[in-house]
Amino acid sequence: MSTPSAVRIVEVGARDGLQNEKTIIPAATKIELIDRLSATGLRTIEATSFVSPKWVPQLADAAEVFAGIAKREGVAYPVLVPNLQGYERAREVGAREVAIFTAASEAFNRKNINASIDESIERFLPVLERAAADGVRVRGYVSTVLGCPYQGDVPVADVVRVARRLHDLGCYEVSLGDTIGIGTPLKARAMLRAVAGEVPVDALAVHFHDTRGQALANILACLEEGVSVVDSSVSGTGGCPYAKGATGNVASEDVVYMLEGMGIATGIDLPALIATGLWISEQLGRATSSRVARAAVG
Amino acid sequence: MSTPSAVRIVEVGARDGLQNEKTIIPAATKIELIDRLSATGLRTIEATSFVSPKWVPQLADAAEVFAGIAKREGVAYPVLVPNLQGYERAREVGAREVAIFTAASEAFNRKNINASIDESIERFLPVLERAAADGVRVRGYVSTVLGCPYQGDVPVADVVRVARRLHDLGCYEVSLGDTIGIGTPLKARAMLRAVAGEVPVDALAVHFHDTRGQALANILACLEEGVSVVDSSVSGTGGCPYAKGATGNVASEDVVYMLEGMGIATGIDLPALIATGLWISEQLGRATSSRVARAAVG
Repeated sequence: MSTPSAVRIVEVGARDGLQNEKTIIPAATKIELIDRLSATGLRTIEATSFVSPKWVPQLADAAEVFAGIAKREGVAYPVLVPNLQGYERAREVGAREVAIFTAASEAFNRKNINASIDESIERFLPVLERAAADGVRVRGYVSTVLGCPYQGDVPVADVVRVARRLHDLGCYEVSLGDTIGIGTPLKARAMLRAVAGEVPVDALAVHFHDTRGQALANILACLEEGVSVVDSSVSGTGGCPYAKGATGNVASEDVVYMLEGMGIATGIDLPALIATGLWISEQLGRATSSRVARAAVG
Repeated sequence: MSTPSAVRIVEVGARDGLQNEKTIIPAATKIELIDRLSATGLRTIEATSFVSPKWVPQLADAAEVFAGIAKREGVAYPVLVPNLQGYERAREVGAREVAIFTAASEAFNRKNINASIDESIERFLPVLERAAADGVRVRGYVSTVLGCPYQGDVPVADVVRVARRLHDLGCYEVSLGDTIGIGTPLKARAMLRAVAGEVPVDALAVHFHDTRGQALANILACLEEGVSVVDSSVSGTGGCPYAKGATGNVASEDVVYMLEGMGIATGIDLPALIATGLWISEQLGRATSSRVARAAVG
């Protein structure tokens, strides 16, 4: 087994986490969260989402939050954009990296945005063109890579095709998401290996939800395939609004604990990350989902 | 990577789980628990512990419980015994398999039983001799294999020495326990590999607590080393009374979900196991620690 010597964590708590929490917290708290996260050594922090407030009221303050955060040297603050309008709103407040999203499941796309996979990608073409012209980096998300709440199994060939298309269209990195947390290690590894046959593994990230407790085992399996970018959420905030009983993203604290324990450098100050996770959990009025954080407080 | 085609789960919830729960449940409930577990397809179910009720009041009814359970054909019901007196009490009610225990940490043994590792093993010699004469199988537990709450690091050489001694003394299987749930995959794998250099891997089991969420990743790493016996606890009951913030054993439901998802046969009816875990959690007045169970109920 060989694993990478260093891993970059993409912290998604402030976006993927908060957008799926019931409690809406003030912009000032979000800004404090992001600034505390950037002080832990994280180099990529997804800051917010410029989707319509009608869809995601939790992040209606995207412009205020993005404008308010300290832009720390060497830290990227990607923001999610659903279309050109969102892209323009993000650019108005100075976003220099954006993220776009689709699903590998036809049924998931049809149900959620009433479009086929291909149509969902077509809709992003204007964003990708404008971003290329503006020198803005684009990250791509592919969700439901190991299963879908509507169609069940998702063919690996569909994951490969969508990931490759996003990469071909200019996404510097494609994040492969097990949105409903249904995967197990061999399936995760097989999916990753298939995608890495078409997209350089250095341009791939993995994104696991811990719904069935499998996230760290799945991450381990993917590290063994050479992945060196992992999405996670401080305190395990979030959930999947489309999947009953789904928990949030795997907790960043637990991922960092595993990686550092394996001698894989993350550059992150784990005690500071734990403290930040406990603080945001308190703001959200919920217990942390990080087991490492729970063990730390006893 | 190669993993075994089948894994035997050693269900320890009725002993290691319940002995560390604050709530004391009636003998009849324990009997129902064990009988429900044996109906799920589990082939090894640790039933109780014949330690002094002064130490473990939760299991003061060991004789009543053991006498009361249905002895299903093909299912082993080992019981923990601390000494010859416990062994005799277990034998009086018909136990045909017992388990003995020590730690790989000198400090842990000194603190908990005021003996060195070697002395702690010496104390079991009469049990091992009598068991051999009686044709009773003996399982050995080695705790603190990846770290100790008192001495911190535990040298792998100590784990190897203790595991080998237990095996040499006649234990048919030695279970290697990360009692405080502190290990990460590469350390677990290195420890396992070292022990497997001295004890046949078929005579080894792994026993992880999920204190820091690492259990499934650690199990995966050990499966890749050829281990095919995994200890776990339905609903993740238990904890470690000597470690602040420690959660219980890894939940059997989550282990079975991972294994079956990897195509590794367990012979266990997962929905029945989930139902049993939810039921015992209710009896204990606590939420299940199994994420698979939580996802199933939504």
